[in-house]
Amino acid sequence: MLALVFNQRLHLAEDYPEPVLVPGEALIRPHLVGICNTDIEITRGYKGFRGVLGHEFVGTVIACDDPAWLGRRVVGEINAACGRCAVCARGDQSHCPERTTLGIHRRDGAMAECFSLPIRCLHAVAAAIPDTAAVFAEPLAAAVEILQQTYLRPTDQVAVIGDGKLGLLCAQVVRLPGCAVTVVGRHPERWDRLARQGIATLHSNETASRQCSFDVVVDCSGHPSGLATARQLVKPRGRLVLKSTFAAESNLDLSQLVVDEIQLLGSRCGPFAPALRLLERNLIETQPLIAGRMPLSQAERAMQMAERQLKILLEV
Amino acid sequence: MLALVFNQRLHLAEDYPEPVLVPGEALIRPHLVGICNTDIEITRGYKGFRGVLGHEFVGTVIACDDPAWLGRRVVGEINAACGRCAVCARGDQSHCPERTTLGIHRRDGAMAECFSLPIRCLHAVAAAIPDTAAVFAEPLAAAVEILQQTYLRPTDQVAVIGDGKLGLLCAQVVRLPGCAVTVVGRHPERWDRLARQGIATLHSNETASRQCSFDVVVDCSGHPSGLATARQLVKPRGRLVLKSTFAAESNLDLSQLVVDEIQLLGSRCGPFAPALRLLERNLIETQPLIAGRMPLSQAERAMQMAERQLKILLEV
Repeated sequence: MLALVFNQRLHLAEDYPEPVLVPGEALIRPHLVGICNTDIEITRGYKGFRGVLGHEFVGTVIACDDPAWLGRRVVGEINAACGRCAVCARGDQSHCPERTTLGIHRRDGAMAECFSLPIRCLHAVAAAIPDTAAVFAEPLAAAVEILQQTYLRPTDQVAVIGDGKLGLLCAQVVRLPGCAVTVVGRHPERWDRLARQGIATLHSNETASRQCSFDVVVDCSGHPSGLATARQLVKPRGRLVLKSTFAAESNLDLSQLVVDEIQLLGSRCGPFAPALRLLERNLIETQPLIAGRMPLSQAERAMQMAERQLKILLEV
Repeated sequence: MLALVFNQRLHLAEDYPEPVLVPGEALIRPHLVGICNTDIEITRGYKGFRGVLGHEFVGTVIACDDPAWLGRRVVGEINAACGRCAVCARGDQSHCPERTTLGIHRRDGAMAECFSLPIRCLHAVAAAIPDTAAVFAEPLAAAVEILQQTYLRPTDQVAVIGDGKLGLLCAQVVRLPGCAVTVVGRHPERWDRLARQGIATLHSNETASRQCSFDVVVDCSGHPSGLATARQLVKPRGRLVLKSTFAAESNLDLSQLVVDEIQLLGSRCGPFAPALRLLERNLIETQPLIAGRMPLSQAERAMQMAERQLKILLEV
């Protein structure tokens, strides 16, 4: 089958072996697969992954032991936990040390004509949610994880660093409790839609006057420089949420973190059910985030485009 | 007057100028002054401080506009805020950007025959608390700040890295909600008292088997290596409380912090009122923490001893 594979180098394989159905799992034919910055970081060495890329998808179950799932339109959680260890027992499946992760760690991803995922990772998609919105369920769940991890007061001043794919989703989520939200970015051409949503914007080069003025700062920049900006903007006793994973290491003055009593929150995958509810309630705009759609056969070029643009969707 | 001064080098001055009473402040004659690791770090360049050292004290008010405070036995908060800025207005006086800090930043400290502090920083000491306990109010308040910043569940497994002065205080505080507490250290000769308090101990060289097994890890080690140990011991989704300030920078893999969704909490000065209540209720043992008492005239030698020992108290 056709599949986008990273194995020291990125290439489109035409005869990649089809997955075999194993008990407890489902074979899925994806309709759309989103390209995420993590996919790009993997091609730079992040996590040392080898295999089929892709973890943001909406698709149809084409084979599975449980007839209730056959033919259903689904999205899916990307962490396949062992279900037996102490971490799983306390409900932290997404942190299971034995887990595989779709297209990221020891499990082939969704940028292929077919892929496999445990049934317990699947979520059925309501008919009201079109494919072009459902494909955002995974990154939206990651944005919702911020609300899952920390309490945003409606009076909080919140900054989101980065006006890329994840930043624009996170900004829409942190505005939900009524907080004043400012997106800090480098792409003014993307800001119209934010103004319509009541979200303020600020250019990354003009942050000097806003030092120490935000209760919560979410770093979605994907770059160490974004973390430095985030650190400047957060108030003493404020919270700094890290949403970016990148291959590079960052330096951070930890003593100053102690002096200013900053709270740093690492934040990754989030809950799918509330993300799907938000999509069904039309509370999150996904259409303006889509920069283009391309067939899987052009996935290599799509990956290049995704480095400089908003969401590129692969059609399978 | 006699004073221990750091000014590029540490020296005991015999003719340091006496402080002058200014409106809103009190002149205090200290009885006892504790030597803290921060004092030692300052002599290594931390914060670039120049002046009289010392910020842990119990003493008597000898001059002050308000007669109600004259002659009273007091301890004191070390941050002297401006009281006028937006940070002060929201109640975060200890983070006022204009603040001076006793013996740490732009304000002479307590290792002298007399020093000055704003009246609003003072706390009267109940008669039931002896000087040798009251002098621990400041570091104990810093330990209580952990409970002020984060919710310790009675079922949490908590590790404290460091069996030094601050570690032994923090361990006693985090045991209060009923948590299982393990102190990780390098001084087995200090562990008897911990066993009597129901606190487990573990040698720093023997942590391999306890990786990822603590919900909360408090780093009181004062060294970058302690932070590395703390990072090893904390569970995914766990909390890592940083109590150490040191001159060196630390490297931390922030991407892995995101993947494991670790919460990092910088933690510094804390509330005095609950610290004094704990001392009055005899819930914290301070006597075993005292390694020695020496007169102010031997302060230079005392500072050397404090590098390798538990609390050294200066008698003024």
